[in-house]
Amino acid sequence: MISPSPRLFRFGAAWGAALLLLAAGRLAARNAVVIQADFGGAVMPGVCYSVSRELDIFTVQPLIPLYDIDAAARNLIYTAPVWPAGTVFVSVVDPGVGTKRKSVVLKTRNGQYFVSPDNGTLSLVAEQLGIEAVREIDEKVNRRPGTEWSHTFHGRDVYSYTAARLAAGVITFEQVGPLLEPKVVKLEYPPATVEHGVATGMIYTSKGLLGNTASLIDRQTFLKLGLKEGDEVAVTIRHAGQVAFEKTIPYVRTFGEVPIGQLLLFINSSGYVALAINQGNFAETYNIDSGKDWLLSVRKQ
Amino acid sequence: MISPSPRLFRFGAAWGAALLLLAAGRLAARNAVVIQADFGGAVMPGVCYSVSRELDIFTVQPLIPLYDIDAAARNLIYTAPVWPAGTVFVSVVDPGVGTKRKSVVLKTRNGQYFVSPDNGTLSLVAEQLGIEAVREIDEKVNRRPGTEWSHTFHGRDVYSYTAARLAAGVITFEQVGPLLEPKVVKLEYPPATVEHGVATGMIYTSKGLLGNTASLIDRQTFLKLGLKEGDEVAVTIRHAGQVAFEKTIPYVRTFGEVPIGQLLLFINSSGYVALAINQGNFAETYNIDSGKDWLLSVRKQ
Amino acid sequence: MISPSPRLFRFGAAWGAALLLLAAGRLAARNAVVIQADFGGAVMPGVCYSVSRELDIFTVQPLIPLYDIDAAARNLIYTAPVWPAGTVFVSVVDPGVGTKRKSVVLKTRNGQYFVSPDNGTLSLVAEQLGIEAVREIDEKVNRRPGTEWSHTFHGRDVYSYTAARLAAGVITFEQVGPLLEPKVVKLEYPPATVEHGVATGMIYTSKGLLGNTASLIDRQTFLKLGLKEGDEVAVTIRHAGQVAFEKTIPYVRTFGEVPIGQLLLFINSSGYVALAINQGNFAETYNIDSGKDWLLSVRKQ
Repeated sequence: MISPSPRLFRFGAAWGAALLLLAAGRLAARNAVVIQADFGGAVMPGVCYSVSRELDIFTVQPLIPLYDIDAAARNLIYTAPVWPAGTVFVSVVDPGVGTKRKSVVLKTRNGQYFVSPDNGTLSLVAEQLGIEAVREIDEKVNRRPGTEWSHTFHGRDVYSYTAARLAAGVITFEQVGPLLEPKVVKLEYPPATVEHGVATGMIYTSKGLLGNTASLIDRQTFLKLGLKEGDEVAVTIRHAGQVAFEKTIPYVRTFGEVPIGQLLLFINSSGYVALAINQGNFAETYNIDSGKDWLLSVRKQ
Repeated sequence: MISPSPRLFRFGAAWGAALLLLAAGRLAARNAVVIQADFGGAVMPGVCYSVSRELDIFTVQPLIPLYDIDAAARNLIYTAPVWPAGTVFVSVVDPGVGTKRKSVVLKTRNGQYFVSPDNGTLSLVAEQLGIEAVREIDEKVNRRPGTEWSHTFHGRDVYSYTAARLAAGVITFEQVGPLLEPKVVKLEYPPATVEHGVATGMIYTSKGLLGNTASLIDRQTFLKLGLKEGDEVAVTIRHAGQVAFEKTIPYVRTFGEVPIGQLLLFINSSGYVALAINQGNFAETYNIDSGKDWLLSVRKQ
Repeated sequence: MISPSPRLFRFGAAWGAALLLLAAGRLAARNAVVIQADFGGAVMPGVCYSVSRELDIFTVQPLIPLYDIDAAARNLIYTAPVWPAGTVFVSVVDPGVGTKRKSVVLKTRNGQYFVSPDNGTLSLVAEQLGIEAVREIDEKVNRRPGTEWSHTFHGRDVYSYTAARLAAGVITFEQVGPLLEPKVVKLEYPPATVEHGVATGMIYTSKGLLGNTASLIDRQTFLKLGLKEGDEVAVTIRHAGQVAFEKTIPYVRTFGEVPIGQLLLFINSSGYVALAINQGNFAETYNIDSGKDWLLSVRKQ
């Protein structure tokens, strides 16, 4: 057998190197960065794109309401589960910019990353996806060069820069900064309960675009009441202990199962008990808000 | 002549296979998914991205007004013509979620796909781009695994999932589901007419961002009046038969041809007769709305 | 030494050609197009995508306020510096569509391109990034085929089409059209001054999302006052010569250094002197607007 021609081998090797570079350029870097914030513009996407053109950059629109950490936390847990492992989320809802709140990256058990001030925003993803590790961003190495004078736009100078470098493989998770205790600042929500055939949970969103009122009574807790689709449910909403709404409502699968303008109780797309008016606005019609002093109770009629 | 060295051949074949995989990964999957909906967030893009990282994912912003099927239909026909064949549009404006309206994919004659509830949204693209075929989405195979319990977010669980799989070549159009009759639910608009030198058509949009009032009198119909740019046109708007606006207005090519604050009649960028105030808001100034009971008539002065 | 086998060579050459094509397809075309406009939708991204699927297409959200050329100019200079050389920005805020304002492409010294009507939008990027050259778009060659009848949507028919072709390397900068004088229409802002220990500058934004009031007193000018962080600063705002606000305010690095609800003076993320209320809305609270008749003066207390 003859040995391969050196010239041909060199030829093949050159192509091979080119191909490897090409493949490496693509494979090393193809993660998504998903940006949510209470302000818009194309600055944070630009920072990410400048780190690597191979990133897939997405922004959440419409914006998170200004300074609304609860909404930021809810939107993260609503959004993250449909994205693949390796996705890096950046959340910049940061009313305390410049205070002692830490800047962290949370890695969850499903292999996703969350870059955010540790101000409660990470509460729900930590709880529901599980904490793999939390690291504090070391701003000495993870800050856009030339921005040392800037103290009010961490979203640009630190968070999106760090997120992009992590997503693109420029830094490893270890290079984000020192390991912290595996916990984050929590938004404390009272757990849903079932007692004497009554399920009770905090009202968690109301005055959104659709005006549906959603509670923290999860599907599993609700199913303990032994209700089946089509059953009537006795519903009470209390605000600071006072009854704010009381009616009997059909438990159905979806909006179209009641006439337009009628009330329904259903399991929403996050898996929680919710109230709505078919093609109407429940929260506005009955002036129902959300928060710790708003409780929903449901029992089998 | 010597035969090629087996070792070299294997070497070349290995690179070749790598290259083919790389090329296939790129070529099979590079279609756009364009998402329009009456709600926002990063859930539908995430579903698409999880299907394939090779997709190019776009979302329409600002949102379609809530439950506004007419606006969804108009925006589709306004948007689709500039996108290439193979683009998959997802429209989720679905006030009847959970009712018997079908979930379909329309393939138009220009090789584009439209994934939507068949509730009128597809009316204008079907009419103007032509129906190649309509298939009903078979939710037994085209539904995100693990979402069988969810009945209120077809946009996430069925529409964007199906759109992404179709765009990425994971399924063929045939695998969407069974073929239906080649028709969709239509929004019936009265056709524009020309009689006795008067062109008449329904007013179709008014209170948008710019406040321009656009009719369904298309350019070809309008040109039958024999008007040329610069001519004065007698314009009448009737609401439920009553005259709501009556003036003589210059027919010009574009805004800047009249002074700021002055009225103009022009052919808009969709090719229809429209009225505006240069840098003003026609619809608000004259309180002109849109719909079947709003008619625009124009005749040569 | 034997010469390479012709068959192997052809084999290698075929792969080589395929690889080169693949690489060329990727390398020629990977620039970002960043679209800002005072209207939304997916038409301009679609035009860009139809030019080349290799482009990385971004849109600025929320929209630029309608007809607000100042806001368009400010957003460009706020956004551009974080994007890489080669990025093509399209700005379509064009109240004078159809008038004699020129359609141009500005190339700045940092290797970025700006496609816009020359109506003031390019003023700040020209001044701060430096003009390399300005070319007028030759609409005979740089207009989407089949849109000759359309005179009101230059954003679709000319600007985004030209931007995409430039970003994708379909045309060179020279092919945009004829070279103009190296200048653009300027928005004239009075320069910041320091006299007798008082720095004065125009108020440039106020009633934005956050309600921070920012001036054109840049960091270098401000530092001439010899203030250090923590110092108290005497602040006066005049509207048309009348005092509209007068207080002594601490100069701090960032919001969190004063209690919630308290006033602060800081260097904002663009590098200019700004006033805010921590987690409040300065501009609304004190009814402060922006423009040439609004002046901020600061002096060491």
